[in-house]
Amino acid sequence: MNIAVYPGSFDPVTNGHLDVIKRAAKVFDKLIVAVLINPSKTPMFSVEERVEMLREVTFDIENVEIDCFSGLLIEYLEKVNSKIIVKGLRMVSDFEYEFQMALINKKLNPEVETIFFMTSNKYGYLSSSIVKEVASFGGCLSDLVPDSVIKHIFKKLKK
Amino acid sequence: MNIAVYPGSFDPVTNGHLDVIKRAAKVFDKLIVAVLINPSKTPMFSVEERVEMLREVTFDIENVEIDCFSGLLIEYLEKVNSKIIVKGLRMVSDFEYEFQMALINKKLNPEVETIFFMTSNKYGYLSSSIVKEVASFGGCLSDLVPDSVIKHIFKKLKK
Amino acid sequence: MNIAVYPGSFDPVTNGHLDVIKRAAKVFDKLIVAVLINPSKTPMFSVEERVEMLREVTFDIENVEIDCFSGLLIEYLEKVNSKIIVKGLRMVSDFEYEFQMALINKKLNPEVETIFFMTSNKYGYLSSSIVKEVASFGGCLSDLVPDSVIKHIFKKLKK
Amino acid sequence: MNIAVYPGSFDPVTNGHLDVIKRAAKVFDKLIVAVLINPSKTPMFSVEERVEMLREVTFDIENVEIDCFSGLLIEYLEKVNSKIIVKGLRMVSDFEYEFQMALINKKLNPEVETIFFMTSNKYGYLSSSIVKEVASFGGCLSDLVPDSVIKHIFKKLKK
Amino acid sequence: MNIAVYPGSFDPVTNGHLDVIKRAAKVFDKLIVAVLINPSKTPMFSVEERVEMLREVTFDIENVEIDCFSGLLIEYLEKVNSKIIVKGLRMVSDFEYEFQMALINKKLNPEVETIFFMTSNKYGYLSSSIVKEVASFGGCLSDLVPDSVIKHIFKKLKK
Amino acid sequence: MNIAVYPGSFDPVTNGHLDVIKRAAKVFDKLIVAVLINPSKTPMFSVEERVEMLREVTFDIENVEIDCFSGLLIEYLEKVNSKIIVKGLRMVSDFEYEFQMALINKKLNPEVETIFFMTSNKYGYLSSSIVKEVASFGGCLSDLVPDSVIKHIFKKLKK
Repeated sequence: MNIAVYPGSFDPVTNGHLDVIKRAAKVFDKLIVAVLINPSKTPMFSVEERVEMLREVTFDIENVEIDCFSGLLIEYLEKVNSKIIVKGLRMVSDFEYEFQMALINKKLNPEVETIFFMTSNKYGYLSSSIVKEVASFGGCLSDLVPDSVIKHIFKKLKK
Repeated sequence: MNIAVYPGSFDPVTNGHLDVIKRAAKVFDKLIVAVLINPSKTPMFSVEERVEMLREVTFDIENVEIDCFSGLLIEYLEKVNSKIIVKGLRMVSDFEYEFQMALINKKLNPEVETIFFMTSNKYGYLSSSIVKEVASFGGCLSDLVPDSVIKHIFKKLKK
Repeated sequence: MNIAVYPGSFDPVTNGHLDVIKRAAKVFDKLIVAVLINPSKTPMFSVEERVEMLREVTFDIENVEIDCFSGLLIEYLEKVNSKIIVKGLRMVSDFEYEFQMALINKKLNPEVETIFFMTSNKYGYLSSSIVKEVASFGGCLSDLVPDSVIKHIFKKLKK
Repeated sequence: MNIAVYPGSFDPVTNGHLDVIKRAAKVFDKLIVAVLINPSKTPMFSVEERVEMLREVTFDIENVEIDCFSGLLIEYLEKVNSKIIVKGLRMVSDFEYEFQMALINKKLNPEVETIFFMTSNKYGYLSSSIVKEVASFGGCLSDLVPDSVIKHIFKKLKK
Repeated sequence: MNIAVYPGSFDPVTNGHLDVIKRAAKVFDKLIVAVLINPSKTPMFSVEERVEMLREVTFDIENVEIDCFSGLLIEYLEKVNSKIIVKGLRMVSDFEYEFQMALINKKLNPEVETIFFMTSNKYGYLSSSIVKEVASFGGCLSDLVPDSVIKHIFKKLKK
Repeated sequence: MNIAVYPGSFDPVTNGHLDVIKRAAKVFDKLIVAVLINPSKTPMFSVEERVEMLREVTFDIENVEIDCFSGLLIEYLEKVNSKIIVKGLRMVSDFEYEFQMALINKKLNPEVETIFFMTSNKYGYLSSSIVKEVASFGGCLSDLVPDSVIKHIFKKLKK
């Protein structure tokens, strides 16, 4: 069975992430979306909230599982018995960073493959930080994130 | 009447910015240079000082106005009755960020156009942060910023 | 009066070109779309056919004129009394070539400005050569070029 | 069953191509390496020779099949019952061209996914045209192409 | 005598840096590796430790000297009687930043040349920050940094 | 003695090339500017004319020699006892091609180093092909090529 892992911060999940999830879920037998626990960053949403939002927007995709991990991605892959990392590419600057990451991961475990999906051009401009910036100024979020995520962002901003 | 808005931090205005201002002022009936008030950054100069420096270096260009704004650029444009955003491009990395910004702004208001001027190659290496770095080490600032700005930087550094 | 010139091969005009034409026509008082006569290339359509197709797809935009020119763009601009070149940007590779062209044109006439519009991300993948490739293999052209252009391509391919 | 297609000119197959083939063969149930018949190019090797060389260097990889096709890639995919295109990425310039191709293919058939493997950095400099250039000047080809391909190139150059 | 300066943070020195040092040492009569003292950053290793590690890994290259400096690089060059800056390039994003730096340094002193070496593709993915990230998660560091540096990192992490 | 080779087509030599020649001549004991004889291209000037023009514009730089070569650059280097290739970089697209070339040359002879100079930003837009295009349309060539080269171009175009 082909198990792939799609790692990321997902703070919060955007329509661009969801697009990659849906497409990768068609290609692999099982896709684990894995929220990275990064103690050196101050996220908008807690790991639990991010996992929850991902569950809500993928509940109808049968072969998708949501999880979280800390430490080296390579070790998480071993734990869940996967050898495939899925990443989305939007732009040239993504490309170079992801290239570097793919090479270092290959160095740490030559068995692991990083596989890239091009983000649909409809979502080429999207990132979690742009979503947060637009939200903080009260801009309209429809088409940027799934509807259920809009509610979570509003709740968070009211506090 | 064609009103264009050139937004930015201008902390401080450089000869590269001034070059874009002069060129855009020839193309549009009115050009508003709009200093972004960004509470999450610690600038070298206050918004008032940045507006003041911009006024000094553009006083002889009739159709240029200096202003400041906070919040979404798209809403500021509506307020001043403009549908044109002016941006300068220096390099490939500028290009990708600005492309993303232009797309998100188009998403928020499809009526708004972002228009790009190439920075004169004489100023391709210039940015406000490089100016501040050179200044902090006592390097020569002539040709990097207008003369009146050099005085403001010296005053600020003496404090 | 602000007259801008949008030069290109337009062999044939695509929906990406038409998008730039529509947007530039809103910003300038008059927009001249100028077909470059390039003797060193073998186009699919003659200059007359390309001008004709451009006229068909822009007939309802009042301030757009279609023309053709040979020789230096800078001299054509002088002839039609314009100081503004309009170009569309799709990608990083466009950016570098266009940057070089803008600098050489500025060198030949410092009064002339090149102004860039970002191609709508819906058309980021489009180019005249991709259209011709898809057409030559019998692929579907709707959404790639205006409907009237599809007919011209079919006629041409039948010969 | 997950069938993926790796299209290309393979004129001739390099160690970089072989690296992508080996890695993609681990991820998919079946990988078809498909030589593109392009009448507008003058290749060094005929389609039959290119298919033959690919067969020689992949004979020990069970789930790899060699084929050739002409016309639209999208239609070939349909014929062989695949919805996955595999491509290798080496550099930023690859990235932009492949991005454009992936978008146009998605436009022609939204069901089809293009999936990218990063070429091992050991082979980042390799391309079929560089191999042919080095060969034409009598440079050493070991490490650039599989050994069996070296023989084919020598035979071809002697003629 | 041709004296070149290779400036950087070297926090810590990687195999990529060492590769550039070895290659530049062959080209110039004397190479000074100069650790930049940057008060606005919080390094993993003190300047003294970084100088010490550089000395350990270059002790057998006769014409290499290790030093440190603060302030403008241009002024340090004057002090050590050099007119050549050596930099390593790995990727496009390096390229643009280094281009900007080379231009500003040329502006500050037109006599100074910046000369670029391409990092061996074996080390294209390497940077001091990736080394620190891998180390913090307990990943294997061999091939990333010289052996003597591994010991220093372990000591530092134990504290 | 440090001998460096600056290879190229120089069809014709531009002010950008001359800028690189002058700067490299300061860094190395001897600089050989080597015109590549490429039978598969149709140049504007013969190899003899290109060598002649290079001699004219470098006659006052003592340590510069002009030569020509065919075949592999690596073998030419061996012949003239050099281990250093000099190249100029203008843009990101240059960078990727030159990177590939530097890696293949290192592969063919690990002793050889490719060293890059950034083209002065004054000449960032310049290339031999742009010079030929401007000349063919009768545009002004001053600042693009040395004065003596202008005469050669005029003579050639009259024929």
